[in-house]
Amino acid sequence: MAEYKAPLREMNFLLHEVFEADKLWASMPALAETADRETADAILEEMAKLAANTLDPINRTGDEEGCQWNDGVVTTPQGFPEAYTTYCEGGWGALVGNPEFGGMGMPKMLGAQVEEMICAANISFALYPVLTNGACLAIDAHGSEELKQKYLPNMYAGTWAGAMDLTEPHAGTDLGIIRTKAEPQEDGSYSITGSKIFITGGDHDLSENIIHLVLAKLPDAPKGPKGISLFLVPKILVNEDGSLGERNGVSCGSIEHKMGIKASATCAMNFDGAKGWLVGEVNKGLAAMFTMMNYERLGVGIQGLGASERSYQSAIEYARDRVQSRSPEGAKQPEKAADPIIVHPDVRRMLLTQKALIGGGRALSTYVAKWLDISKFGEGEEKQHAEAMVALLTPVAKAFFTDKGLECTVLGQQVFGGHGYIREWGQEQLVRDVRITQIYEGTNGIQALDLIGRKTVANGGALFELFAADVQTFIDANADNEALAEYIQPLATELQRLKDVTAAVLEAAKQDPNAPGAASVEYLHLFGYVAYAYMWAKVVSVAAPKAAADDFYRSQVKTARFYFARLLPMTAGLAGSVLAGSETLMDLEEELF
Amino acid sequence: MAEYKAPLREMNFLLHEVFEADKLWASMPALAETADRETADAILEEMAKLAANTLDPINRTGDEEGCQWNDGVVTTPQGFPEAYTTYCEGGWGALVGNPEFGGMGMPKMLGAQVEEMICAANISFALYPVLTNGACLAIDAHGSEELKQKYLPNMYAGTWAGAMDLTEPHAGTDLGIIRTKAEPQEDGSYSITGSKIFITGGDHDLSENIIHLVLAKLPDAPKGPKGISLFLVPKILVNEDGSLGERNGVSCGSIEHKMGIKASATCAMNFDGAKGWLVGEVNKGLAAMFTMMNYERLGVGIQGLGASERSYQSAIEYARDRVQSRSPEGAKQPEKAADPIIVHPDVRRMLLTQKALIGGGRALSTYVAKWLDISKFGEGEEKQHAEAMVALLTPVAKAFFTDKGLECTVLGQQVFGGHGYIREWGQEQLVRDVRITQIYEGTNGIQALDLIGRKTVANGGALFELFAADVQTFIDANADNEALAEYIQPLATELQRLKDVTAAVLEAAKQDPNAPGAASVEYLHLFGYVAYAYMWAKVVSVAAPKAAADDFYRSQVKTARFYFARLLPMTAGLAGSVLAGSETLMDLEEELF
Repeated sequence: MAEYKAPLREMNFLLHEVFEADKLWASMPALAETADRETADAILEEMAKLAANTLDPINRTGDEEGCQWNDGVVTTPQGFPEAYTTYCEGGWGALVGNPEFGGMGMPKMLGAQVEEMICAANISFALYPVLTNGACLAIDAHGSEELKQKYLPNMYAGTWAGAMDLTEPHAGTDLGIIRTKAEPQEDGSYSITGSKIFITGGDHDLSENIIHLVLAKLPDAPKGPKGISLFLVPKILVNEDGSLGERNGVSCGSIEHKMGIKASATCAMNFDGAKGWLVGEVNKGLAAMFTMMNYERLGVGIQGLGASERSYQSAIEYARDRVQSRSPEGAKQPEKAADPIIVHPDVRRMLLTQKALIGGGRALSTYVAKWLDISKFGEGEEKQHAEAMVALLTPVAKAFFTDKGLECTVLGQQVFGGHGYIREWGQEQLVRDVRITQIYEGTNGIQALDLIGRKTVANGGALFELFAADVQTFIDANADNEALAEYIQPLATELQRLKDVTAAVLEAAKQDPNAPGAASVEYLHLFGYVAYAYMWAKVVSVAAPKAAADDFYRSQVKTARFYFARLLPMTAGLAGSVLAGSETLMDLEEELF
Repeated sequence: MAEYKAPLREMNFLLHEVFEADKLWASMPALAETADRETADAILEEMAKLAANTLDPINRTGDEEGCQWNDGVVTTPQGFPEAYTTYCEGGWGALVGNPEFGGMGMPKMLGAQVEEMICAANISFALYPVLTNGACLAIDAHGSEELKQKYLPNMYAGTWAGAMDLTEPHAGTDLGIIRTKAEPQEDGSYSITGSKIFITGGDHDLSENIIHLVLAKLPDAPKGPKGISLFLVPKILVNEDGSLGERNGVSCGSIEHKMGIKASATCAMNFDGAKGWLVGEVNKGLAAMFTMMNYERLGVGIQGLGASERSYQSAIEYARDRVQSRSPEGAKQPEKAADPIIVHPDVRRMLLTQKALIGGGRALSTYVAKWLDISKFGEGEEKQHAEAMVALLTPVAKAFFTDKGLECTVLGQQVFGGHGYIREWGQEQLVRDVRITQIYEGTNGIQALDLIGRKTVANGGALFELFAADVQTFIDANADNEALAEYIQPLATELQRLKDVTAAVLEAAKQDPNAPGAASVEYLHLFGYVAYAYMWAKVVSVAAPKAAADDFYRSQVKTARFYFARLLPMTAGLAGSVLAGSETLMDLEEELF
């Protein structure tokens, strides 16, 4: 497998040329002093090295070895503890953390690129710090001052890792029915008892402590999602002076044997009267969890992008090296026994599909991260508008990046032919690893329901109109730009198609409670394709003027043309499917399946 | 995971009601005495038992244990040798074999259903007899009388297994550049020397001998595909009296570690001056191999169907049992903590998509098998027509069934949520196992190129017109059938779309050598969707009149309606992509990827 080379040129292009990150940063007081182009460049270059030199080399071995569970103790594969130490010593755990508690306060636009590199190199590894980041976000947003001071600095430093304990054997999507109990104690803490499953990084040997954020119910809590509270439960109790004390009643009962991400410990956790502290308000645990969910879900989407990029890099290398059959145009390398397979139209289709989906996804990821930054660091109406955009686009990013992540890694594997199925080549691991991203952090079906339901039907399409207006503004601004003519008209057509389909679903939902669910997944894919078209048009608007003189920009423009010509047409089929409505979905009696 | 229950009702419905197998069999002298409905029913019921009781129980354990290689000897997982013995004792290896040499001479229409059951229960196991079947077909079609008498009876009995040795490290798709040599010996045999990879069942402990069919080149052979000959090379030489003699110069150097089908031994084989005998004519080895390729490729397609059916059965069971959240219509089972997930529109979408794609595929598989039977047992024009249909439809069956096989198994896994990613539930194994079917026996990209190139452009669309005429005949015959009105008009529209796209590619190919390759994969998918629409319309034509009174028929009709409403619209997108042509595919310079 080709060595991983971080796509720094693409990242810098998106950050600074397409989305003008430095201007945004300069305009925001909280960022003006910490983030600038020079710092960003240095950070990206450092992570590129760490990813290539430290994380990538233990990706295959980690898959082969997997995590081990022995008598309640989880051991990560060889090299993982050392890599984690290197990661923490580089200060990476603090990158986007709150400066009041030792964080660097960097913007998510930058964090998104950093995450992509980590995930491209090693998704299993990435999950340990990613979960810690998520826990830090929740503590920072909802924890008491005391909790923040006690836990955040060590978590940013990575000395203590984080874990999120939501799922129970009978309660996955439906957290309202969890059974884990939290009983108030006289000292203000709570006694937590219950069993959780699928806890990523629930136990491991990377850090000296693990801070669990646990959803549980108070004895008198209302039924359903409005009776859930959030608790901070450390694996090892922390003394007043910050030193580690006794072991808490938290234990790992087993780890799962999975299709992929085998170097990530997926734990069954038992809480036996474990000591915990309330985070946020009683019965508002789900809401507290959801404030950081947008970051986490974008992060999972980025895992899909990272795996796609990794697969693409290997596939290109293979397609240039492997000789097999002749070009349909006649021999291209007559001195060899055959031509490199990159001459074949269908191999190019596979590679270009990867390239176009990764490029569109990376642009959309940066665009969503920009709205996240504005929603965090901005003020007033600007902030509100950004929050709305984040709410709408997060499920698209999570589900579309990862659905396309499976498609991309399968394509990369297919380029390798039979060798793609053999473990040593590494392509099949990417398929197995990326598959989980369509499932966890809310399945992609749940994302789609969130997009069309809570984010669209529930507000009569108000959020959608904000996005549509943003696209329309771009279309209007470029209406007379001849260099963009071949993109602007199709983009306008596709936007109209998406508007029409959205209106149709809004209308159908008035009568038919099944309409949103019936539309959901194809609607999200339709939305994703149109959003990528918008992204590629934006990319071209910057790249086209420089394309004649520069290979990089020309490559961007040609990939955009491929996207519009060959991939965007899929919207016609998706729209047709959505518009067919719920009738044929709901008609078959349960016993006749 | 749910126990596997063979879909006998569906199979019998397709065989006898939709495709009127018994009438066909009665009309053909070679089949009239061997095949009738009663025999067919008994055969299907017996295999249903074998699949459920013997093959299915060793599927998961086989995956966990895998094959082992030690010092040149391959051991299959626990239970495999016993299951293989049971399989052979049941006479299954002889099912479709030539009666002159101990075969039962049964039609492929029946064989296709039997294969689906074996593959649904255990793809890894299936490959051992499947490869033997393929080798028997080639020997029967091209071997000398002496070879047939010496090898076929034991191969039909399963005492000797078969293997096909084509691929070399540098030569996969491009067999023209193989290096394995065959040097003529004075006794009329050949000395075979070379290395082969990816040899399924190249070595194992199931049978007392393994008969390799090896592609190799004579010293004076022309370059390229026209210089390849086919040789029979036994692992253990067979004495004149049929007893086993000395070990031949055939050895297994290693086995591959793969994404899936782990209980199938994928071997690197070395031939060191091994004794072999020519099968067919010198330099016509590829053609000899291709006479049985249609059977093999349909067989691989059927692996995709089998895995899909297995995944679907488990997914339904899970969707009925697992309770999570409430129906959008309001609580369906208020006494429980939540409703079974089968109430959710998107879960039904996933299940119905599986059901519709499996049903369409099983019908098309039976339809192609019917043409295979007519091409084998028929005569004159009828036989020629059948050969043409087989030639055209085989790549569609192989690639579309398996591409949809990945889609279906991924959907089945998704229904399980997080549990789908865990090995013990079995869904993830189906995804890993089915993935190879898109790659081996000619990648799906190669199938697509075969369909649009050799089978369409090369004859100016003559084969396509035969298929189109067949669909048109059905449309015309049902033009006034009101019960079919909602299917016939869309089918006619889709047929026209496929005709238009075919014509456009034929036209483009006159100028542009890259046009067929650029169109290929999306064209095959478009073809597949239209072919499934034809199949579902045929199914409805039989089922609709009986639907009011019978659950089974009603289920067929409702699934057909779902297919037409929700899946068939995808043709619009595929057509758009094909019509965009090769330009944007070929435009990006190799170094700019």
